[in-house]
Amino acid sequence: MTLPAPFINADMGEGVGLHRFGNDETLMEIVDAINVACGFHAGDPEVMAETVRLAGEHGVVMGAHPGFPDIPGFGRRRIDVAPGEVENLIRYQVGALQSFIRVEGLDLHHIKPHGALFGLLAGDEDRMREAARVNFQYEVPFFGLAGTAHQTVCEEMGVPFISELYVDLNYSAEGKLLIRRRPELADPENVRDRVTRALAGRPILSEDGAEVMIEFQSICVHSDASNSPEVASTVRSVLDAHR
Amino acid sequence: MTLPAPFINADMGEGVGLHRFGNDETLMEIVDAINVACGFHAGDPEVMAETVRLAGEHGVVMGAHPGFPDIPGFGRRRIDVAPGEVENLIRYQVGALQSFIRVEGLDLHHIKPHGALFGLLAGDEDRMREAARVNFQYEVPFFGLAGTAHQTVCEEMGVPFISELYVDLNYSAEGKLLIRRRPELADPENVRDRVTRALAGRPILSEDGAEVMIEFQSICVHSDASNSPEVASTVRSVLDAHR
Amino acid sequence: MTLPAPFINADMGEGVGLHRFGNDETLMEIVDAINVACGFHAGDPEVMAETVRLAGEHGVVMGAHPGFPDIPGFGRRRIDVAPGEVENLIRYQVGALQSFIRVEGLDLHHIKPHGALFGLLAGDEDRMREAARVNFQYEVPFFGLAGTAHQTVCEEMGVPFISELYVDLNYSAEGKLLIRRRPELADPENVRDRVTRALAGRPILSEDGAEVMIEFQSICVHSDASNSPEVASTVRSVLDAHR
Amino acid sequence: MTLPAPFINADMGEGVGLHRFGNDETLMEIVDAINVACGFHAGDPEVMAETVRLAGEHGVVMGAHPGFPDIPGFGRRRIDVAPGEVENLIRYQVGALQSFIRVEGLDLHHIKPHGALFGLLAGDEDRMREAARVNFQYEVPFFGLAGTAHQTVCEEMGVPFISELYVDLNYSAEGKLLIRRRPELADPENVRDRVTRALAGRPILSEDGAEVMIEFQSICVHSDASNSPEVASTVRSVLDAHR
Repeated sequence: MTLPAPFINADMGEGVGLHRFGNDETLMEIVDAINVACGFHAGDPEVMAETVRLAGEHGVVMGAHPGFPDIPGFGRRRIDVAPGEVENLIRYQVGALQSFIRVEGLDLHHIKPHGALFGLLAGDEDRMREAARVNFQYEVPFFGLAGTAHQTVCEEMGVPFISELYVDLNYSAEGKLLIRRRPELADPENVRDRVTRALAGRPILSEDGAEVMIEFQSICVHSDASNSPEVASTVRSVLDAHR
Repeated sequence: MTLPAPFINADMGEGVGLHRFGNDETLMEIVDAINVACGFHAGDPEVMAETVRLAGEHGVVMGAHPGFPDIPGFGRRRIDVAPGEVENLIRYQVGALQSFIRVEGLDLHHIKPHGALFGLLAGDEDRMREAARVNFQYEVPFFGLAGTAHQTVCEEMGVPFISELYVDLNYSAEGKLLIRRRPELADPENVRDRVTRALAGRPILSEDGAEVMIEFQSICVHSDASNSPEVASTVRSVLDAHR
Repeated sequence: MTLPAPFINADMGEGVGLHRFGNDETLMEIVDAINVACGFHAGDPEVMAETVRLAGEHGVVMGAHPGFPDIPGFGRRRIDVAPGEVENLIRYQVGALQSFIRVEGLDLHHIKPHGALFGLLAGDEDRMREAARVNFQYEVPFFGLAGTAHQTVCEEMGVPFISELYVDLNYSAEGKLLIRRRPELADPENVRDRVTRALAGRPILSEDGAEVMIEFQSICVHSDASNSPEVASTVRSVLDAHR
Repeated sequence: MTLPAPFINADMGEGVGLHRFGNDETLMEIVDAINVACGFHAGDPEVMAETVRLAGEHGVVMGAHPGFPDIPGFGRRRIDVAPGEVENLIRYQVGALQSFIRVEGLDLHHIKPHGALFGLLAGDEDRMREAARVNFQYEVPFFGLAGTAHQTVCEEMGVPFISELYVDLNYSAEGKLLIRRRPELADPENVRDRVTRALAGRPILSEDGAEVMIEFQSICVHSDASNSPEVASTVRSVLDAHR
């Protein structure tokens, strides 16, 4: 299934046990694609089953959102893995999610690693090759950052690549995405400004005000901030106005 | 430190990683004593450090709230432990919490097991003896249910025992506490009624309307329901009016 | 792929991190089918990848061996799961393993739950129906105990059922399998006697010497005892002599 | 309790559930001090209780051996922790161990972090200050590497410092300890040579044959290699001959 670019994707199913961020149902009304946590940084079999069922009901496509095995750190702490470990931990998590997707008669749409694993892969071609082998196995695209190892390795290995723009994280002056441990509230006005600029093919503003060009086919919204639905709605309204 | 009976206690520090129930600070303004999750059913070192510091600032006394090792089940699924395992898992968790309490120059006030472990101990004297040995080691009282193994074993072993009344869980007609996996909202009117009856020395109403006498020195409020602060405030106002 | 009955199956891949029981390679020379731990009671993505690759090299067929989420208890402590949880935790683990099997170009052969989960399903038809739905999804047989809910539910739901004889665990006089927390060394002479009796269609001896008839198509050997290879070799030699 | 320098210390209690490295009892006959895993990289409450009891019987002194929360990686993968997290995760683990030590009427002797955490602290003064605050709280020495942040921070904060020589790991030509994910067998002849040189105040040989001076008061032996007892015995015999 091909989504019209630019479309909105959001990380979801990031509850654990009794804990939920609480925005998943609302966000599913707004976004086009979701990235489902697979149990290592968040999500457990109950949460995954519920998230996949919800996504099916809302008709949003689903990708896997594998992370480092680190619930207390929410997968946002880099772990110095040995060669081969990235491939195995992604393979494990994608298979686990696939099991819930298939029983609903649906298909895995993409893979997008989470947090510190996503960041690690952007800068390490060897590890990124390990990740891309799982995309290759499942014949699905990789969602990531243009101009990083995400893209170069996907192109080298013939894995379809979907580039992303982030609206609730900052970029450095060099265009590097700055991943935080804890969510900060994104100002909807800044979000509107960034998406408007990006859609017009203009540079967006980095953390320190420098202009940065970001190539993208999809816009990512996080679900762990309390105002995530407002952020997502803002993106949606700019996209709708742009069409 | 001895609290005037009846006092209010609440389970707290039950977040994990980025997840919080969100009522801890508000509840600390209302209750007298808290039971701090110790990392097995909820809580992690960061959450524990923060909870202990907050409790110190609010001047509420702190007990340990050890649970089964089961974050996805929130310690509310009974695990068939072998002899000796209850003692070791409580000893581990209480020591871990003690480390955070001592560095603040404070004292451990009591031990109150969590969820399914609490329920197991109410009905199993052998396992309860294991638990009580940790109270004995730390020279602190056990919080539990009158008329169960909680009380009989404490009396047998010379461990001080504080009996509890629950306001956000139901009792069976036989006076047995019904522990749920997920919180249900307690109706503040029912809470007010139950506390008023109990303070007057009258029976409270079981799930099916039978009258049940509950002996208690403390009233417990959970923190995982969205209206926990309202429930706690209701209990506080009845207690204040009664004095 | 259909194996000639009776064939030998063994639980494997039950290491965690640096820890291994150390008999897997030797056992793969002897047995016909293995049950691969899926990360909840034992096994991690590294161990799973290695076990699946080894099994492929040795030409043994592979089933999933899902267990309760309990590494310290090795999945041998029953956890009081809520309705639906058995299905989700088995679905998760089977999918994770399938991901490693498929990348090697191999097929999942069966599902056989581990330890306390296996025992729970033998006595609880509702939970067993949840488990069987995953067999139904993957179109593979269930390995279990004849005359228990394992068999009755499989027959009710049209899931192929393979019955097992155990040689390193005791049976009660009622023919119930007695699952232990820690391995005890099985006496090869007793193993030889039990298999010889069973192959001749005669009753085997229970823990207290009573005669018990066990219906079986496969013989299970555990890998966590130090003499597992000797036990497996003994079973193999009796089977070979019987042919 | 002060041990005569140089004494032998060994990491122990690094089993999980059914898994053991199997050398602990033998090693306790040989070494003077042990470092007990505290549940995060290895060890669980059962293993800890058993290890502390054994150490008491053998009269070896016990330190805490806290690690990163990473059982599959055995605490040998660096985790990019945020400020404050090192202090909290060490405080948690030391308290948990202290609980088992105190109930036996014994005392905590020292703290020695494990694996990748140990390595992180050697090179990061800020994190090392967090660790040293826990030594300060428990009034026990820190075991670590001379000439690294281990030593400089301990001296700055007035925490007693015990320097170590390693015999089953290599050093770089710059004298940096090379921590491995998996144990390699140390050649007892090399061990004998290294200890003999070091006791004579001569440089030892680095991985590539360069001469490196190592200042030390204690010699560390790991327990996860199959020939650990032979390595420890070799060290002991050299020490005995030297006296």
